[in-house]
Amino acid sequence: MPPSYPELNPSTRLLLGPGPSAVHPRVLRAMSTPLLGYMDPEFLTLLDETQALLRYVFQTSNALTLPVSGTGMAGMEAILANLLEPDDKILVCAAGYFGNRLEEVALRHGAAVTKIEKPWGEVFAPQEIDAALKQSPAKVVALVHAETSTGALQPLEGMAEVVHRHGALLVLDTVTSLGGVPLKLDEWGVDATYSGTQKCLGCPPGLAPVSVSDRAGAVIRNRNASRKPSAWYFDLELLAKYYGPERVYHHTVSGTLIYALREGARLVAEEGLEQRWARHRANAEYLWDGLKEMDLTPFVPLAQRLPTLTTVRVPEGVDEAKVRGRLRDEYGIEIGAGLGPLKGQVWRVGLMGYSSRKENVTLLLGALGEILK
Amino acid sequence: MPPSYPELNPSTRLLLGPGPSAVHPRVLRAMSTPLLGYMDPEFLTLLDETQALLRYVFQTSNALTLPVSGTGMAGMEAILANLLEPDDKILVCAAGYFGNRLEEVALRHGAAVTKIEKPWGEVFAPQEIDAALKQSPAKVVALVHAETSTGALQPLEGMAEVVHRHGALLVLDTVTSLGGVPLKLDEWGVDATYSGTQKCLGCPPGLAPVSVSDRAGAVIRNRNASRKPSAWYFDLELLAKYYGPERVYHHTVSGTLIYALREGARLVAEEGLEQRWARHRANAEYLWDGLKEMDLTPFVPLAQRLPTLTTVRVPEGVDEAKVRGRLRDEYGIEIGAGLGPLKGQVWRVGLMGYSSRKENVTLLLGALGEILK
Repeated sequence: MPPSYPELNPSTRLLLGPGPSAVHPRVLRAMSTPLLGYMDPEFLTLLDETQALLRYVFQTSNALTLPVSGTGMAGMEAILANLLEPDDKILVCAAGYFGNRLEEVALRHGAAVTKIEKPWGEVFAPQEIDAALKQSPAKVVALVHAETSTGALQPLEGMAEVVHRHGALLVLDTVTSLGGVPLKLDEWGVDATYSGTQKCLGCPPGLAPVSVSDRAGAVIRNRNASRKPSAWYFDLELLAKYYGPERVYHHTVSGTLIYALREGARLVAEEGLEQRWARHRANAEYLWDGLKEMDLTPFVPLAQRLPTLTTVRVPEGVDEAKVRGRLRDEYGIEIGAGLGPLKGQVWRVGLMGYSSRKENVTLLLGALGEILK
Repeated sequence: MPPSYPELNPSTRLLLGPGPSAVHPRVLRAMSTPLLGYMDPEFLTLLDETQALLRYVFQTSNALTLPVSGTGMAGMEAILANLLEPDDKILVCAAGYFGNRLEEVALRHGAAVTKIEKPWGEVFAPQEIDAALKQSPAKVVALVHAETSTGALQPLEGMAEVVHRHGALLVLDTVTSLGGVPLKLDEWGVDATYSGTQKCLGCPPGLAPVSVSDRAGAVIRNRNASRKPSAWYFDLELLAKYYGPERVYHHTVSGTLIYALREGARLVAEEGLEQRWARHRANAEYLWDGLKEMDLTPFVPLAQRLPTLTTVRVPEGVDEAKVRGRLRDEYGIEIGAGLGPLKGQVWRVGLMGYSSRKENVTLLLGALGEILK
């Protein structure tokens, strides 16, 4: 007998965790649009438009800007697998879960990893990168712009200058920053970045927007010809042949997810990046003010606190999992648990994309107040 | 100024090419359902159900049956990257584009590839595999069940017996067969397979269902501990920790695509596999009969002709691209062009999933008749 399950009918959830965030209604609607073939001229136009919108969202003119057909982690692996050849040196700056992930993935591709670590929640200063590169030169320096595990925002001022002075490439994880906090790839001198669609872009997970500077693109092109990236699916030169004018088949791109990303990026363009960043900031400040009134303390000091994801210290004596369970079951609200050393120590509250709305903050604060009183 | 593009409004297309096929209306509707978090208990139940449905569709009891978060090519890479360690030997049987792809991807992961080739459109006999393995033993033998580039269906009778007698594992590409033609993983002794959602399952592209036997799973578990699969994103042991009872975060699975796959697989279960295979067969025969009446000839002899994708010889003197263009522009129908040595020689007509309906065949035959008359 074939298995039999009921019609899809999930409970309503207000997604205020580390991602996915709530998908914008216009994006949900776009996804019920019937598909075009992956070589249909109309579909290729939609791809071009999606790439142009991504360049705007990333604030870059990088030709090599496209969505990898996987989630944000696929984007991380695509960037590292293409930039690094076996035994190439990478300096990974880790002060959270995703910094550690960079090391883990780089090792898979045979890179020689040097890692500088700081306590979770802290950020790196250019002088620290400078000192590390003096001690051990590297081809690539990898930093996390918005560390989803800690809620810290890494400042980029002066960073590319130091990295480039040492002849290295700057790789930036922008999964939880793209479309939510100021990010200016070209102005900041970022050489390669990857992100996800399910955070501040208000789309479902499934695509990883990446962008690669001409300088980093040349490094990829000049790889040892006998040592192609060890993941064929993520080979950016092959992907560029489909996303570029040649239109050579590589894999069957997901029309549905492209529809979603195009619509999500159109919404960013309609709102305007500056206004969008300001909205994320304002709603975060509203949250922080409300937390303060309830004697709840953000884990990260204000100076380096990320507006899109706030880590909140769990008050002593409070069962954090029970609070999350009650938020979910009584109010339909999802917030996240702490990861790694922050497990049990913090809640993670995301205000990203369509989830970043004042009424959501009001509801969360009200619900938390009722549960904690 | 931010770029500005109009609302999504693609032309209506009847997708009768090599994929994507038409997405079933119930699947389209499922995708506009708001998301759950990737650790929400309700979402985890939906994942369990999706995996159970996939086991039914694959006709297997393999515990390690899950959708990889990428397209069919991601599935191919996931299976090869996990089963093969550098310098491991693989015998690739290639009589088409995707046979060659198996070689290309295996080489990326450092495997030692032996390839036996036959002219495009032909299939392999167990004795040929036997002879090849006698000459050059291999850890893995890779075959394409339904070769999308040629329209040939590889018989599996006696195949696993030969492969296992030589101590090898049988890997089968089922991208264009799963849910459309008889496929019985356990009965046939297939050790590992990968497929896609955008063919006979009637879903959009974006997930790659894979299934791995206990025997092949043990090979993965017993890899040299210092040589993990070179693609972290595709590491099946890590994926199994999220899809299995441990529920350890690996990447943010696409809720939308899971909704789609669950609904597509529910539709398979409702119809019943036997009935579904019979429907695909009947509509293909209706097409073949109609082609014959128009003096159009399938490229592959009936005995090994694939019901889900038919390659049709382009009559002499006919501009094949012009015919495809007119089908698209005047009738809203997409069919595919030939690939590789079949470029310009054949059209590729897919009757897969929701696209496999009698009225679609009638329309295509009518349109072709008008254009070719």
